[in-house]
Parts: sequence; C-alpha cells; structure tokens
Amino acid sequence: MERFEHGGNIYRHPGVLDFSASLNPMGMPIAAREALVACVDQYTSYPDPLCTELTHAIAAFEDVAESSVLACAGATDAFARLCTVIRPHKALLYAPCYLGYEQALAQVGAQVTYHDLSEVDGFGLESSMAAALTKGTDLVFIANPNNPTGRCVTRDAIVALLERAREAGAIVVLDECFIDLAEQGRPSNDLLPAFPNLVIVKALTKTFALAGLRVGYALTANQSLLERLREAGQPWAVSVPAQVAGVACLKDPADYLKQSLDLIANERARLAMTLRETGMGVVESEVNYLLWKAREDLTDAFLSHGVLVRSCANFRGLDERWHRIAVRTAAENDRFIAVLEEVAR
Amino acid sequence: MERFEHGGNIYRHPGVLDFSASLNPMGMPIAAREALVACVDQYTSYPDPLCTELTHAIAAFEDVAESSVLACAGATDAFARLCTVIRPHKALLYAPCYLGYEQALAQVGAQVTYHDLSEVDGFGLESSMAAALTKGTDLVFIANPNNPTGRCVTRDAIVALLERAREAGAIVVLDECFIDLAEQGRPSNDLLPAFPNLVIVKALTKTFALAGLRVGYALTANQSLLERLREAGQPWAVSVPAQVAGVACLKDPADYLKQSLDLIANERARLAMTLRETGMGVVESEVNYLLWKAREDLTDAFLSHGVLVRSCANFRGLDERWHRIAVRTAAENDRFIAVLEEVAR
Repeated sequence: MERFEHGGNIYRHPGVLDFSASLNPMGMPIAAREALVACVDQYTSYPDPLCTELTHAIAAFEDVAESSVLACAGATDAFARLCTVIRPHKALLYAPCYLGYEQALAQVGAQVTYHDLSEVDGFGLESSMAAALTKGTDLVFIANPNNPTGRCVTRDAIVALLERAREAGAIVVLDECFIDLAEQGRPSNDLLPAFPNLVIVKALTKTFALAGLRVGYALTANQSLLERLREAGQPWAVSVPAQVAGVACLKDPADYLKQSLDLIANERARLAMTLRETGMGVVESEVNYLLWKAREDLTDAFLSHGVLVRSCANFRGLDERWHRIAVRTAAENDRFIAVLEEVAR
Repeated sequence: MERFEHGGNIYRHPGVLDFSASLNPMGMPIAAREALVACVDQYTSYPDPLCTELTHAIAAFEDVAESSVLACAGATDAFARLCTVIRPHKALLYAPCYLGYEQALAQVGAQVTYHDLSEVDGFGLESSMAAALTKGTDLVFIANPNNPTGRCVTRDAIVALLERAREAGAIVVLDECFIDLAEQGRPSNDLLPAFPNLVIVKALTKTFALAGLRVGYALTANQSLLERLREAGQPWAVSVPAQVAGVACLKDPADYLKQSLDLIANERARLAMTLRETGMGVVESEVNYLLWKAREDLTDAFLSHGVLVRSCANFRGLDERWHRIAVRTAAENDRFIAVLEEVAR
C-alpha cells in the first residue's frame, strides 16, 4: 500500500486541514468551476479520445506546437506510459525526489540508480546533475522545481544534463508540474525542438488545484515517441470533466496565476520565518511547499491538532525528522502556525 | 489510431445522432446528476485512492464481499491491468468480440488464438466455448452478453469453461459490462467463490450512461490477484466525479434498471422488426444494441443523414456489411427508422 501513501489522503483522516498535498492555495479557477457545473450532461458521452480542444488549449498555453502535446490522465499516467514505452534497463533518479518516478519504474522492472543530493547545500542539483549520468543509463527523471525540496534548477544545468543524456542515448523526463507556481521558475519548453530526448511532464492538478480530476500532459518534439506514448495509454484516458476543466483553466490564466504567485510568495515567507523561529531547519523553496526538519517526527502531534503534514520519512535521503507542508491561504496558514507553536513547545 | 476507432467518437462528427455507442438510453440517473453538480468543489482534493465508499456501494449492488472488489477507471483500465499482471503468453478470444481485449493483449505482446464463432447459429458461444480452450492458454476473454452480437451465454457453458480453464491453469476474464441491461441475463457473481480463476469485469459506463467519467470494476475472489491488480494501476485512477457518480448510481438503482429494461426490450423489438422488414439480417439480441447485416456498407449513407452507426468492418469474423446500433429512446429510434427507410431504398 506504500504506493497509496503520498500526501493528500484526507480520506483516512476526515475533517483535517490538509497541508500534505501541495495544491494551488487559490483553489480551482472560477471559470473551471462554472464549466464543470455546465457540462454534467456531457458525461453520458465518451470523452474525445484525441482530446482535440484540450490539446489546442495546452499548445497555446505552453507556446508549443500541437503535435508536441499529449494529454494524459495526470502526470502519473504520463510517467507510467513513459516507462511502458521506453522500458528502461537503468534509470537515474536524484534523491530526494517524488516517489512516483520510482513507482512507475518498478512497474517495468527497471534498475534504479540514485544520485543522492546533499543536505549541506539544501539538496541543490546543479553541481552534480549531469556528471551523475553514467553510460548505460537510458532514462532520467528530474524535477524543476524539485519535490519535496521546492528548489528550481538552472537553465545551464538542464542543458548540460540534456547534452550528456544525448551522448549516452538517454531520455530525460523533466517534471515541471510545479513550474507555474514558482516565481523564479523558467519553463523549459523552448528546449524541446533542440532536444528530441526531452519529455516535459506537467499537470493541472497542482497549478489549478484540480487533483480530483486527473489531467496532465507530456510535451516532446519527438514525434515517434509521442505516438508510442499515445498508443500506450487507454483510449479514453482523459475524462469529459478533465478535458472541460483543462480547457477552461488554460484559456486565460494570467491573472489567476499572477495572484497565485503573489499569495504563495507572501505566505511562504511567513511560514518559513515562523518555522525557523521555532527552531526548524527550512530548505529554501521557490514554490508552494516547504521542506523542513525538526528534532523528531511531528506528524502525529500535528494530526492530534487536526492538521495533516507530509512526513518525509519515506523519501530516500530524508528521515522522519523531515516534513513537507503546502503553502495555503493566510487564514489556513494562521491555523498551521498556531498549531506549530503548540507542537514545538 | 485504430485503437481510437471504437464506437462513440462523436467529436469527429459533431451534431450527429449517435447510434454507435451502446449506452443506456435512459441517460444518467437523476441521483447521479444531482450528486455530480453538488460535488464540484471536491475536485480540488485528490480522489480517495482506495475508493472506500465506491467499493462499499459496488459490493452491496453486486452482492459480493468488499474484498472481492477493485474499482478501476472503466473496464478498459481493468483489462489493461489484467494483461499487465497476468502477462499472458497465449490468450484465447471468441470472434467477433469487443476490440478492447485484443488491444490490451497487444500491449503486453501476448499471442492471441481466435476461436471463430459461426454466423449460421447467430454467433452462439455455447457449443464450442470450453472445447476451444486448449493447453498452454493462460488467459481467456469472454463476454456475457457478447459484443457486438448481444447474445448471452448460458450458465452451463460458463461453468464448463471455468472448469476447463482451471484444468489448463488459465484465468477467465468474464466481461459482464452489459449484463444489467439484458433482461434474460444472469450475472455470474455467485460463481466467484468457487472459481478463483474467474475475474468479472463491469463498468458503469454502459449501464448508467456515464461514458464520460471512466468508472468500472473487477470482481474476483482471488485475493492475491486482486492485490496485484490494485498495484498495477495508478494510485488515483478513479477520479472524484467517477467515485461520486458511481456511489450515487449504485445506491438504489432498482427502479431505474427496471425502466431501462422495459424501454430497451420494447424499442429493440421495434428496431429489429423494422430492420428485418427492410431486408436486413438481424442477430437475436438480448441487450441494448443490435448487430445486423446489409448488402453493403451503409455507414456513410446513414452519416449523410446525420446518424452515426457502428461499422463492424474491423471486427474479426465480420465485414463492412455488418452494422451495430444502440437501442435508444423511442423518438431517437423513430429518427433512425426514418433514415433507415431512406437508406434502404
């Protein structure tokens, strides 16, 4: 059941305030909510298997060619398809990282090599990223920003990795699910044409707080790979509500995203400061979640006060002293801070 | 793109009256519609990965133990998981049958043996079903009622197949997606405890006209197989709207299903009679679709009158003279009949 122990399982703890799932604190865009209420009668029909309108909206939002877009049932579906199609013998992961990569790789029996990042420099990726890719590696997962650390990766480091991967014959899966919530984050889409070994994976789950609907996408200029990814999925993988909500979210998201970034920056700074004041070690984050280290596991203490935080004990390279919290609304963060002050006493 | 050419692709033909997808003509139950409108704000949270409430509702509706239920993202997801987990070397199919089996088997490179059913006895399965299962077969797909023929399989024939499969060490996947819309259909759930080599697959797609949401399930008494099927899927495979709609549909469906059966029986008889009167050969169906044979391919002729019928040219054992239509509402069937009379002239 390990696979089902990501953040966000509020069903096991009904009524808690959930800081374990890192979703946009703004909640679902109003346009998406309206479109979802209006489209219920369309649920009697099969979804468009080619996700025509959604693909068009993604291409416009991401400023890429439609032929580079494959809509999926969330990033998880994209990772599973990639592993099915590439069937890697040897995959490289940078730890700590999102558990979903390892789980997708385990499904196809890939051998996983870990490059362990160092706590001393806040789990930075830059210095060691490309060098860690050794011969025989056929697939690399990397996240920008990384999860659970919240740190972005520089353009130079990404390019260096892509070049090294090209020499080694490896595909690079670049998870940019959180990039639109990172104010300093620079999307890597413009690298797609030059690097056919690059697949960028994104999801609407986090950016638009639509975790319940399962909608995401893969971007690649590699047409034959994209067609194989399409064939590897289920014909109606992206449901009607997922397609409708995706189109509505991506139509005119500039104001919503700007407000999201402002909210996240202010609230993250406040949460980080308070955590540091209570003696926690906080990794410098650029996005809507914070990784921090206490002297002990505080998960149960928070839960007894009705707050769910993400224990990072099951991330390689971390242990039960590490916790991850989402940046939420000011009022919700006030509640977290009040509980923190109780718990940290 | 063959995989995406099932019935129901109304997106390629906007505005048509769709007789190609075989959904319950009653449309979505009112309770499901209300629940879907009411639950939109829950879409910001991840779905319950264990589908707790939905599993409970399925077990009650199917009169099986909760431990025998695995909720999936539609029957397609169940078929894909089964092929991933069983990794069959040699699979047996009875042709003509639903294309999804072959597609799921192709994903795992299984060798497929076809047992061709005979047009002479209306593609009946009984006489040859068990005998066709030869040594070395490790997976069999069978549908009750079969699709596209609409014919149910007798209890005796199913039991004989299960016994033969047990001897051969084969798993039987019994697709009963349409059983609740077949008035003479007898569900096979009570066979589960005696046959750990039996997996029944069902979907809410057809029964409750929820094709846009992707929700179905597998039933098996084989606990280790069920756990492997769970692990083979994506952690949040069943979306929030799919879970909510599923629970609402299954809560108290007796009246809805009774009305559906009455509507389907009356309208199917009327459609079959009219088709026969216009010189078509019609297979005796027990469910909400009809397979019929013309002198030539009439798909384009129907389409030019705004009616989408399912060409059966890509079913093994059939050809372009064969067509499948859904049984729809009286008014919609009137329209079909009017077009039929034009086309058949």
